[in-house]
Order: sequence, then C-alpha cells, then structure tokens
Amino acid sequence: MSHIVYVLNGPNLNLLGKREPHIYGHATLADVEADCRKVAQELALDIEFRQSNREYELIDWIQEARGRAGGIVINPAAFSYTSVGILDALLMFDAPIIEVHISNIHKREAFRQHTYMSSVASGVIAGCGTQGYTLALRRLALLIGERK
Amino acid sequence: MSHIVYVLNGPNLNLLGKREPHIYGHATLADVEADCRKVAQELALDIEFRQSNREYELIDWIQEARGRAGGIVINPAAFSYTSVGILDALLMFDAPIIEVHISNIHKREAFRQHTYMSSVASGVIAGCGTQGYTLALRRLALLIGERK
Amino acid sequence: MSHIVYVLNGPNLNLLGKREPHIYGHATLADVEADCRKVAQELALDIEFRQSNREYELIDWIQEARGRAGGIVINPAAFSYTSVGILDALLMFDAPIIEVHISNIHKREAFRQHTYMSSVASGVIAGCGTQGYTLALRRLALLIGERK
Amino acid sequence: MSHIVYVLNGPNLNLLGKREPHIYGHATLADVEADCRKVAQELALDIEFRQSNREYELIDWIQEARGRAGGIVINPAAFSYTSVGILDALLMFDAPIIEVHISNIHKREAFRQHTYMSSVASGVIAGCGTQGYTLALRRLALLIGERK
Amino acid sequence: MSHIVYVLNGPNLNLLGKREPHIYGHATLADVEADCRKVAQELALDIEFRQSNREYELIDWIQEARGRAGGIVINPAAFSYTSVGILDALLMFDAPIIEVHISNIHKREAFRQHTYMSSVASGVIAGCGTQGYTLALRRLALLIGERK
Amino acid sequence: MSHIVYVLNGPNLNLLGKREPHIYGHATLADVEADCRKVAQELALDIEFRQSNREYELIDWIQEARGRAGGIVINPAAFSYTSVGILDALLMFDAPIIEVHISNIHKREAFRQHTYMSSVASGVIAGCGTQGYTLALRRLALLIGERK
Amino acid sequence: MSHIVYVLNGPNLNLLGKREPHIYGHATLADVEADCRKVAQELALDIEFRQSNREYELIDWIQEARGRAGGIVINPAAFSYTSVGILDALLMFDAPIIEVHISNIHKREAFRQHTYMSSVASGVIAGCGTQGYTLALRRLALLIGERK
Amino acid sequence: MSHIVYVLNGPNLNLLGKREPHIYGHATLADVEADCRKVAQELALDIEFRQSNREYELIDWIQEARGRAGGIVINPAAFSYTSVGILDALLMFDAPIIEVHISNIHKREAFRQHTYMSSVASGVIAGCGTQGYTLALRRLALLIGERK
Amino acid sequence: MSHIVYVLNGPNLNLLGKREPHIYGHATLADVEADCRKVAQELALDIEFRQSNREYELIDWIQEARGRAGGIVINPAAFSYTSVGILDALLMFDAPIIEVHISNIHKREAFRQHTYMSSVASGVIAGCGTQGYTLALRRLALLIGERK
Amino acid sequence: MSHIVYVLNGPNLNLLGKREPHIYGHATLADVEADCRKVAQELALDIEFRQSNREYELIDWIQEARGRAGGIVINPAAFSYTSVGILDALLMFDAPIIEVHISNIHKREAFRQHTYMSSVASGVIAGCGTQGYTLALRRLALLIGERK
Amino acid sequence: MSHIVYVLNGPNLNLLGKREPHIYGHATLADVEADCRKVAQELALDIEFRQSNREYELIDWIQEARGRAGGIVINPAAFSYTSVGILDALLMFDAPIIEVHISNIHKREAFRQHTYMSSVASGVIAGCGTQGYTLALRRLALLIGERK
Amino acid sequence: MSHIVYVLNGPNLNLLGKREPHIYGHATLADVEADCRKVAQELALDIEFRQSNREYELIDWIQEARGRAGGIVINPAAFSYTSVGILDALLMFDAPIIEVHISNIHKREAFRQHTYMSSVASGVIAGCGTQGYTLALRRLALLIGERK
Repeated sequence: MSHIVYVLNGPNLNLLGKREPHIYGHATLADVEADCRKVAQELALDIEFRQSNREYELIDWIQEARGRAGGIVINPAAFSYTSVGILDALLMFDAPIIEVHISNIHKREAFRQHTYMSSVASGVIAGCGTQGYTLALRRLALLIGERK
Repeated sequence: MSHIVYVLNGPNLNLLGKREPHIYGHATLADVEADCRKVAQELALDIEFRQSNREYELIDWIQEARGRAGGIVINPAAFSYTSVGILDALLMFDAPIIEVHISNIHKREAFRQHTYMSSVASGVIAGCGTQGYTLALRRLALLIGERK
Repeated sequence: MSHIVYVLNGPNLNLLGKREPHIYGHATLADVEADCRKVAQELALDIEFRQSNREYELIDWIQEARGRAGGIVINPAAFSYTSVGILDALLMFDAPIIEVHISNIHKREAFRQHTYMSSVASGVIAGCGTQGYTLALRRLALLIGERK
Repeated sequence: MSHIVYVLNGPNLNLLGKREPHIYGHATLADVEADCRKVAQELALDIEFRQSNREYELIDWIQEARGRAGGIVINPAAFSYTSVGILDALLMFDAPIIEVHISNIHKREAFRQHTYMSSVASGVIAGCGTQGYTLALRRLALLIGERK
Repeated sequence: MSHIVYVLNGPNLNLLGKREPHIYGHATLADVEADCRKVAQELALDIEFRQSNREYELIDWIQEARGRAGGIVINPAAFSYTSVGILDALLMFDAPIIEVHISNIHKREAFRQHTYMSSVASGVIAGCGTQGYTLALRRLALLIGERK
Repeated sequence: MSHIVYVLNGPNLNLLGKREPHIYGHATLADVEADCRKVAQELALDIEFRQSNREYELIDWIQEARGRAGGIVINPAAFSYTSVGILDALLMFDAPIIEVHISNIHKREAFRQHTYMSSVASGVIAGCGTQGYTLALRRLALLIGERK
Repeated sequence: MSHIVYVLNGPNLNLLGKREPHIYGHATLADVEADCRKVAQELALDIEFRQSNREYELIDWIQEARGRAGGIVINPAAFSYTSVGILDALLMFDAPIIEVHISNIHKREAFRQHTYMSSVASGVIAGCGTQGYTLALRRLALLIGERK
Repeated sequence: MSHIVYVLNGPNLNLLGKREPHIYGHATLADVEADCRKVAQELALDIEFRQSNREYELIDWIQEARGRAGGIVINPAAFSYTSVGILDALLMFDAPIIEVHISNIHKREAFRQHTYMSSVASGVIAGCGTQGYTLALRRLALLIGERK
Repeated sequence: MSHIVYVLNGPNLNLLGKREPHIYGHATLADVEADCRKVAQELALDIEFRQSNREYELIDWIQEARGRAGGIVINPAAFSYTSVGILDALLMFDAPIIEVHISNIHKREAFRQHTYMSSVASGVIAGCGTQGYTLALRRLALLIGERK
Repeated sequence: MSHIVYVLNGPNLNLLGKREPHIYGHATLADVEADCRKVAQELALDIEFRQSNREYELIDWIQEARGRAGGIVINPAAFSYTSVGILDALLMFDAPIIEVHISNIHKREAFRQHTYMSSVASGVIAGCGTQGYTLALRRLALLIGERK
Repeated sequence: MSHIVYVLNGPNLNLLGKREPHIYGHATLADVEADCRKVAQELALDIEFRQSNREYELIDWIQEARGRAGGIVINPAAFSYTSVGILDALLMFDAPIIEVHISNIHKREAFRQHTYMSSVASGVIAGCGTQGYTLALRRLALLIGERK
Repeated sequence: MSHIVYVLNGPNLNLLGKREPHIYGHATLADVEADCRKVAQELALDIEFRQSNREYELIDWIQEARGRAGGIVINPAAFSYTSVGILDALLMFDAPIIEVHISNIHKREAFRQHTYMSSVASGVIAGCGTQGYTLALRRLALLIGERK
C-alpha cells in the first residue's frame, strides 16, 4: 500500500485564517500544511498538500491519485454540497478517503447538513478545527497499515 | 480546566465486537476502553469509561459530569436518533463534547443521517471505527489545554 | 371526583434553576413544588409532586394515577417530543390532563413545535415560566369542580 | 409599568356561546369580559376589552396600545393562522403578550396547529376554555409586577 | 434449532383489557399468556413470556435471547415508533422475529403507520387482536422446523 | 354468519413459485389453494379460491361476495398500491377482511410501504410466506364464530 | 325551512366581465344577479345578492344569515385560499352551503387547488362559468325542499 | 355541434344506492339514468348512459365518443385518483367535459383530494349528490349551444 | 401612457421609522413620500402616495388605478405573504408594477421568502432600504417612456 | 438467445397519429409497426407487435414472453405512471427490456417524471418520437448478440 | 441545416472503461469516438467529439456550436445534476439536443433521477451503454434531415 | 470607504442581447457596461466590470475585491442557484453587495426561486432589465457615502 496521502482543499480555503475566524479559527492553510507534515513524518506518510478554487483541478488531482496514493484527506469546502463531479472522481479511487470539515457543519445552514462525499468517504471528521486534518491522517495511517 | 473526561456509550455497545462485525468491527468495548486508557495516559487525561442500555443512566452521568469533567466523548448509539433527553442534559454541560460513531452513519438508513447531539457537540467523528474514540480524546486534550 | 392531582415532571427538570436560566429562569424544582402546594391549599387540592429522568417511571406513575387522581399536570420536558409510551399511558387516564412547558416551545427548535401529549391533554400552557404550574392547577380545580 | 392591559378578540368571537358550543362552551363574550374585569380588579389591572371581525381594527388597537399598555392578552381566533399584519403590529409592541385559544388547537385541523403570533407571544394558553383569559391576566400581572 | 421462543411485550400492555377496550379488546395479558402457552404446547415450543414498560429491559431480554432462543415474538407497543435501541438489539438476533400489533395500526394516527421493527422482522401481523400472538407462534414453529 | 370465505389473489400470483423465488418462495398457487382447503376443512369453512390479473374481476368477485360470504382473504399483490377501485368495493363489503402479503412489504421499495386496503381490512399479515393465507383463515374462523 | 338564499361574492368580483375575460368570461356581476333572480323566481327562492372586497363584510353577512336563510351560495374568490375567518363563520351556519368558482381552479396555480370553504360546503361547483351560480341555486332549492 | 352526450360512470357505481348510503344516498344508477333522460329531453340532448368497472371500457367509450358526441359527463369514481389512461383518452376528446362526483370529495381521505380528470375537464361538480349529473347536463347544453 | 404613478403601502408602514429600526431604518413614511415626490419631479411623474392597514383599501386603490395610472409601486408589507385579493386586483391592472420591500426579505423568516405579488410584478426590489421606492420610480419612468 | 422480440404498446396508442399530434407526431401505430418490421429484418429479429388499452393483456403478454422472447420493447403509455402490475410482470422476465416514450416525458406534467418500469428496464429512450422504437430494437439486437 | 454535430462529454468520462466497469462497461472514450465516427460517416454527419472536466469548457463549446452545428449530443455526466450554466447555454442553442447517459440513471441514487438538461433536450437516452451515443446520432440525423 | 465597485457577471452573460431576448432584452453586455460607466461617473464611482463563465474566476475576483472595493454588484446568472463557492467568497467580503437579476426570477422555473447569494447580499434587484445594474450602483453609492 502506498504511503503517499493526498490532502486536498477546496475553494476559499486559500484564505483560511482571514476568513470568518469565529467559525474557522486563526490558523492559515500554511499552518495546516505544516501541522500535517509534522504528523505525517511521525506516521511515516508522504503528503501531497494542495488547494484550489477550481472544481476541475480537484477532479484532476483525484484522478492523478488513482493507483498512486494510499489514501485521500479531502476538505471539499463549498464543493461538499454541490459537486457530483468530485463525488464521481472519488468513486473511482480505490483506497480510503477521509472527509474533513473544520467547522461543525451540522450546526450551520440547512444546505450544509448533507455532503455528497460522505456517501463515499470511509470516515467523516467535522468540527475539530484544523486539528481535523491530523486526526484524519492518523486514521489513514492505521487503515494503510491494515491493508499492507 | 479539569483533566477528567467522561467516555459514555449508549445501548447495545456492550455487545461490540459480537454485533454486526461487518459494520462495527471485531474490537470489544473492553478493547476500546483499553485503547482509550492508553491514549489518555499519553495525553495526561483521566477517564470515566461507561456504557448503558438505559437512557436515564446516560442522562444521570452527564449531569454528574457537570462541573467535574473537562469534556465528554459520547457515542450515543441508538439514542443518537431518538433522545432529546440526552440532548437536553448535554445542553447543560459547559465544557466541550465530541460525538463519536464507529460506522459512517451517513452511508446507512435515512433515520441515521441526523443526530440530536450534533447540534450541541463541538466535533463529530464518524466512520473511523473504534479509533474514533482516541481521535476524540486527542481533540479534547487540545481543547482542554487551550482553556487552561 | 378525587381532589388528588399528580404533578409530574420529566427529565433534567431536577436541575431546574441551574439549567439554561436564560430559557428556564432561576426557580428550582423545590421552589415550584412549594408554589404548587401553596396554590393547591388555596384550591383545596392534594398534590403528588414527582420528577424522574426515567420514561418508565412516568408511565408507572400515570398508571398509578388511574382511578386515584382527579387530574394530572404534566411537564414531560424532553419526553414531550419522543415518548409514545407516555402518550399511551395518558390515553388510559380518564380525568383531565394539563400539559405545561416552562418556555414557549413555539419559539424554539423545529422538533419542539409538536408534542405527543397535546393530542390528549385538555389544555396546554407554554411560556408562562414556572407560574404555568399554578395556572394549570387553577384550571384543574375548575374542571374537577365541574365534574362533581 | 402601565397597569392597563388590552384584551383583544378576533373574528366570530362576538358569537361566542352560540358558536359550536361543543368546542367553545356556553359562556358569551360578555361573560368572558365580566370574568376578566373581576380578576383584573383582584390583580389591580385596568382592562380594555374589545372584539372585532376586522383585521385592521386589531392592528390599529395594537398600535394604540404601544407605550400605553403594560401587556396584551390576544385571542386572534381565525387570524391566528393567516395574519402577518397582526404579527407585525405585535412585533412593534414592547411589553409582554399572552396568546389565548379557548379550544385546544393542537387537537384540531392541521392548519390550526401553527399560529403566527406564537413566535412573538411570551406565553401561549390553549384549551383552558374561557378560563384561559383570566389565567393570562394572572400571568401578565406577575410579569408587569416584575418589570416595575 | 432451539424450541424456546421469547414473547416480549412493550409498555402499557400490563393494562391490556383495561386499556381502551374498543381498540384492544377485553383479554388481559394473562389471558394472552395462557393462549400462547396452550398453542405452544401443541406446537412443541417453550415460551418465555415477558412484559416491561422499560425500553432497556426489552433490549436486555433480546440480548439474552441471542444464541438461546429459536425465535422472538415481539409486540413493542409504543416503542414500535420510537426505539432504535430495540431495533439495534433485534439486528443482533440471528433467528426469526415476528412483530405483532393487536390493533390494525394502519388505521390509526399517522405516526403509528411505520415501525422501526418491521425492517428487521421476517413477518408482521397487525389487527388480528390477541389472536395475533398465536398466529405468530404458528409461523415461528414452521420456520424453526424448516431450519432444523 | 356464512361459512363461505373468498380467497382472492391479484395479478402475477398465477406464476407463484416461478416468480422471484428468493422473495416469494417455491410454493405454487395450487399448493396454496391445497393448504387453504386443508385448513378450511379443519375450521369448517367453505372456500372460493380465485386469481386474476384483472382489476375488474377482483371488483366483481368482491361485489359477488356481498351478502354471500362471511369473510374475505385478499392478497391484492400489485393492486395493493394502486387500486382505489378494489378499496371501494371492499368498503361495501360488511364482513371481516384479512389482507395477506407473502413477502414483508415493509422491507421493500418505498411504494410498497402503504396499501389502500389496509385502511379497510380488519387485519393485515405480511411476510409470513404462503402460510399467511392459513393464518388469515384461522383469524376469519374466529371472527365468524364470534359473530354468530 | 326559509326560502331566502344569500348569494355572496368576494373581492374583485365587482369587476367581473372586465377582469381577465379569457378566464372569467364577459358577463358582469349585474348579469349574474339578473340570471340568479330569474332562476330563483322559477325555483320560488328569495335572494340576497351581495359583493364585497372586505373580508369582515362577508363574515358579517354570513352571521346575519344564521337563522334567517335556508342556504348560502358563496363565491369567496381570493378569500377561498386565505380566509379562516369566513370558514369559521360558515361553520356556525346550520343550513346548506354551495361553493362556486367561475373558473376551473383545479387547472390554475397550485395555491388555488385548495379552498378553506370546501371542507364546510355541502357542494362545490367549479369551472361552469357564471352558470355555476344558477346550478348552485338549483341544488339549494332541492336541499331546502327536502328539509321541509 | 352534436347533441349526443356520453354519461360515463366508473367502478362500483353499479351498486349505487346500496353502497355506503350515508355518503352516496339512496338513488340507484337506474334512477340517475332516468333523471338524466328526463332533463336531457328538456334540454334537447341525446344520452348514451353507461357504467363499467373496467378501465379499458371507459377508455374505449371515450375514444368512441370522439367526433360523435358534443360533450361528456363523467363520474370516474375510483379511477379519478388512479387512471392516467382515462385522462389521456379525455385529452384526445375535443368537446367539453364535465366531471361529477356525488359526494364532496374535498371532505374525504387525502387521496381523494386530487383527480387526474380535473386538469382536463372544463367544469367540476362535487357534493351535489346525484343531482350533480343533471346540473352537468345543463352546463353541457349551454356550452353545446354556444358552439353551434 | 399616463404619467401618474400610484405608490401604495401596506399595513404597519404608518409606523415606519418607529418600528424595528434595526430592520427598517429611521426614515418615516413622510420622509419616504418626500423622497418620492422629489425624484418624481425629476422624472416628470405624478404621484399618488397612500398607506393603509386595510386590505380592501389597497384592493380599491388598485382598481381605481386601472386605466388611470401608468404604473404602480407597491410595498404590500405583511399582505405580501397572505393576500390573494391584492394579487387578483393587480392581475387586472395592465401597466407595469414594481414591488418594493425595505428589508431583504430573503434573509428573514421562511414565510417571508415568497410573495404573491412577485408573480405579477415586472420587477422586485428588496433590501435597498427606503431608497427602494425611488429606484422603483426610476424603473417605472423608463418603462412608461418606452410604452409611449 | 431467442431472436423474438415483443414490442408492446399501452393504452390510447391505438389512436397514435390522431392523438395530440403536436406532442406525438403524425405517424400511426401501423406506421410504427412497419418501421419496426423493416429494422427488425435488417437486425435479424422476429417481432411480436401488439397494443392494448387493457392492463391485464399487457401483463398476460409479458408472462407469455417469459422463456420465449429474447427481449421486450415496451411503451407502457399511461400505465407507466400507475401500473405496479406491469412492473411485477417485467420483474419475472429475465431478458433485457427497453422502455420507450415517444414524447420527452421529462418536459411534461410532474406525474409523468417517474415511471415504475424504469427501475426494471435496462434502457430508457424518451423524446425520440416514433424513431425511439427502432433505436430500442437496435439496442436489443446488440444485447441479444452479446448474450449468445 | 448544418451536418456538423457536437458530441460533448462531461467530467470523469476521460476515464471511461477504467471507471466502475460494472456500471459503465469496458469501452474507453476513444472507443466511443471511433464508434461515433463510423456511424456518423454512414449518416453523412461531421462530428466534433470532445470531453472536459471543466464546466466552463462545456459552456464555451455549446456557445461555439450556436449557428455552426445542426445538433448536439451531450453526456453531461456529473454536471447533469448540478449545472444550470450548461442548461442556460443549451437554452441559447436553437437546433436539436439529445442527452445521453451510459447507465440507467433511474436505477441509481435519488439525486441522479433528475437532470437539468432533460427540460431542454428533445430526446433522452439512458441505460443503453456506449451504444447510446450512436443511437443519439441516428436520431439527430433524422431530425436534421427533416429540418432541411 | 473605497469608491471602487466591482460589477461581476456570471456565465452566458457574454451572449446577452443574443440570448433569449424575450426574457433578457436586446442590450448587449457592452451596452450594460457603457450604461454603468455613465451612471458611475455621475455618482463618482470607479468600476471594474467583468464577466466569466468560470466559477473560480468569480471567486478569485471577489477575493481580489476584499479590502480594495467599496461594494460589489453581482449578477451570478446560473451560479445563483448552484454555487456555494461564490457564496463563501462573498461571506468574506466586508462591504455591501447588491445582487442583480435581469429577469424576474420569481416568475420562472422553481429552481430559480432561491439564490444562495440573497442570504449575504444587502439588496436584491430582479426583473428591472439591464437597468437593474444602474439602480444597484445608485444603491451602493448611497451606502458607500453613509459609511464614510
């Protein structure tokens, strides 16, 4: 099983830390990446950490991960609620997927209560702040270990 | 902030490991408790680990945790979908709550798509198997640390 | 017609006064009981005042009240929205029932807009604070008087 | 805080006592007014007691009560289910409002299960017959007393 | 295959015969047990006949029946519409389950049209009065016979 | 009370035993008729056993049964979900009706969750396989006996 | 039984004939009144023919008709869909009511598919143009004749 | 324009007068036909009066009426709520259609609140008893007269 | 095309400026009228500026505007959500209509998300404060100019 | 694999070409049959081409096709939306089924948006006019070829 | 009429043949293009065959096709369920559009039951595998021929 | 407060004037830009006028406007109904936003009745044609002036 993990981030996360900090906290995406790299090292994982405001880039990256990555951590952000294209790309990916939301989406607007990805993810972590990313990595490390 | 964390488990979890293992895995609740204690030690947390098939016992334990515990990890199991009583008890608890589901409830029956507790929990972890408990403890450790 | 009135209280009301006082006020359940006893004396009623977090105890008490009590005042709290068992027990009770809610449930979450009991209660009093209990006793006193 | 209380009645209540007595009882609106005046005297309240079949008159009276009355008791009758105009007028009134329904509307047609006013009233009393009016006065007397 | 059959009864059935006889008839639960024992003897079945107003006792009994009983007849009464806990317990039981309702629930209130248990029961018998219990035993006897 | 019982079968039941045996089992309709005749003899009932793919024939047979039969056992099959015509015919029949479904329709497609007939049948038996027919006959025998 | 029939018309019908003639035709309300008077004479009925844009006037007129009229023909126009006040007034009227709509409301906007009055009217005539009024009178004449 | 009018009747109307007389009255279908013929003569219309329990016969008769009849009066009975086949046949008929229901379907079960035919009928008459047929003929006579 | 524009205001707008200023701002209706007259002069329009708490007055004024006014600006306030009578009156008006809401109704209660008038208005302006009136006049001026 | 293909047509298709030609075109059913025979010859298929207004005939023909035909092309017409009987018959057919609709049902009334058959058909072709039949034959020819 | 046909493919179709072959089969998109070119030659059509994971590219291509192409075959894949942008672009295209889905979307998740495009496409072909493309070309060839 | 205003346009607006002119009129986007520049000059505003068919470009531009622009006018076109990504970008923008729709979306398809942006815009202008843009600029000018 590959030790490479793709950590993919959806639209507007490039502004993390500046965007509605009462909801998303003050850590920037660079901070998140640093945290992830630190934990990944501890877990012996390699990380591809990427962000895009473009749906197609997320689709392309998921396609790229096929056969190459041992797992995906994805925070689809706004695309969680609207993108069947990302869902379909994930359906073609045959290793574990963990979906992360920084805020607890279950407390927010009705349209944020359901995500397309949760039907294909093996696990969903919401409302654990940016720590959610490293919790997701810990989960993937275990799953990748079991698969070997 | 108190370092005591209540880890509460709802109905039928006493049979964990024997119950529908294709959904819930083979670890027993004793295994889960052992994992939690190990990680709690690492995180310098004290744990009250309990299980009940009785809604009122869960309510009583949450009331007991008020002013005593620094956080609650709760897997309400079947009560997730039906117990306003537990929700109301949690509403009176003023430290962080992490809700855990062993399976990814978003892939299951429609009535399992919404939990009463998710509106009061700060974080929700689903589909990470029994590892979800220790991930939740890591989250609580961080939150308790920040509160000090 | 019996002058005994059961005043029954559902889960978490044991913490009244400490629980979300911006919603429920500062009076404790002991205060409520004292108020009820005072007004009951004025109205020549006898009171059985009880609280439980246990659905079955409420069912047992309603069964006990059959043929014994002239009326029931019930604040089912969280069970209002979830307990058909209490509804079925009340359906077997053949004297008047007044349902009380301390807060105005019509201003709260959607799931608190409908109670099972309101289909069997003769009267419903919501949002009159803990005074709702004594208003309910006044109503029962009149109904019991009319039945004699 | 003003001791004046407006007691406002909606359409068809002019026929109270003659109208579907199995639902609304035999007391006439004059009887209700007499009861109210008697209890008001006991509570040291002054009463403006009015009825209209006209939505605009109810709106005008609520506007008139602004800054003049210490509280409103309103039985909007049929307008409960259809008048946003009365709701908007009540939203401008800054003292307590108690909504009264003679019958238990929760047992009746589906369209009578929700009232516009219940989102702005502090308390709602339903199914206590015409006694509901005097219970409402008792509630207002307490609230006016607390505000002083 | 075990010849033991659990016959489990939910809340308020302890008052059978006294409770709304126009709906449930005049037979008491003791009468039902006697009928069941008579037919069970004819069918060479052993019976555990129990009733509880407590959800957790029903859960405990179903857990107890695992590996011990050849089938369950359950009349969950009010819990039919509200208990995922009983559903989850039944999901762990690996022999046939027959769900019984004394009245024809399909003719009653909307919330009685769907039961959680019907998704796990192999058969459902409703509206056959207390005879439904013995019809259910006949069905179980056949299924147990086929399994041997 | 007449001892004649009509046993009516709806569309596609002529292929019973050949049709989706994992759902409906291997017994043919002739086997069912034989079982029914055997049990009817034991119960001292006379049986009219019929099947049609034609809605109007079922309507005609129910009209024919008026004043002639002491009860009807009906498995409306596909017409369960679509025929108000059969419902209206049954509404004119003034002796007991038992509705039978071979499979547990509550586990199947959403449109099979509700049948028009269940609002007029006195009893409903689902998921008891072809044994459901003889259970229904036992129920009718008792009801006919009580009516005498 | 009184031979007086009230023929009541709701808002905007004063412009009949000038208003959307492709929907409502070219006859004016005066034409309708003339037709009604002619047919009423033939049927030996007396007619009170009125129109108002004011909900309260319609309520007042229905209250006036109590004990005085043998029947009401009402075309509530826009109030059909919004006025519980008129419904409640009609509920107090104890002789037959026929509801008339000039256009076939079932072919129009979704909100015109349901009228409050149809639950209290004995008959409903829609889409028969202004002839609907005289058809309604014929129906009332028969009902009044039967009541004598 | 042809003076022939088809008067078509759906399932179970052959039992009119014997069927639920509290809803449908005591007149038989023969009585209705006699009434229709009498009024038709007055209106100079010719009548084809038919009844069937068979959906296809109603479809065939409507197809037969194309180009031959000047209008159709149809009481589709149970087919009102279920037959798109009859709707589609009526869509091909290019002269006026009046839909008749003996009872006021708007007061009955929810599934009787909407008929497929009302979207194609020019007029709908409900709750006028069997007189509804002759009222419908009067309407058709006017429409046929206007078309000439 | 007439240069007269009716500016019509619904219930409770007589209290504008005093009513919930956090939602509606501090300008009074007299201020709004002054703004409108100033802009109207610039645009060469004549203005009829009116307000009423009475639905029928708004209906009467819209009827009066037929054939007399070149356009209507209407802020129906509470009637937006409840008055089919005003909708029907506007349907008879054959010049352009602009609907104005001072607040952004799309951010408010669910029942304020849909207005009856928006299906007949050519334009809708919401959330532009009292400036919405003069924007509406600018729009009408252009439309009236184009019609000439 | 059999080369026989049943081409089945539902109600009112006997009038194809005369029926609403703006929706269904001018080709008659005889034209469609001729087209089908021509294409079938090219594809080496044998065709049974039938039409009925009778639901039971369609059921009978589908039963007849079992074990005899290599595929079915079905245009259920009005039965698409109402017949579970045809669905159940198709469920027993074990070769491929192609569902055809002449018009694009997705552009039509809401009740035409869902067909029972689409859950059992392997392919669905809508809105391709009468050419849809020959496209369906081409699809079946390929599937039958692959099965050989 | 132009003989050019655009064949447009949405996201993830670049992986056709590798993606969930149990749903989509083993043919690659290059195979599909080859099939299309072969059939197009037979039909004397010219083909622009394109695929993109980018919504805007599909919009651009549809805009490009305006006035240039005689028809469009589009398999919008995931965008079927989410893209109003593609719908709006198609609304501006004035030649026929055929929508193709390789799988029978009517058997899949609820959100795949409705496509935005089906309201603007003249025809829809689903569940005919990759053969659906050539069937669509045959349809377009006929329509283009008719338009000439 | 900055005097720069971004005027952003969504997909397919590049074809304005050529696209469905009965809905959107004949002005091109260049005409709209010219109108905006003229009015902006009068109002002393600077304008960034842009259009894109790409969701991400709109997101990027809104991010770019943060801290730079004093307001945004946005016509999201098709993205109004589907883009949470644009909504989230607008949530990070802390100056006023006016949403513009050229047509009255409230008269169009159901899915166009709700826009994601209306929950974050301060004002919404629909159905005022391309004049809506300059009305929006007038509104922004006032708001920017007030903020200074």
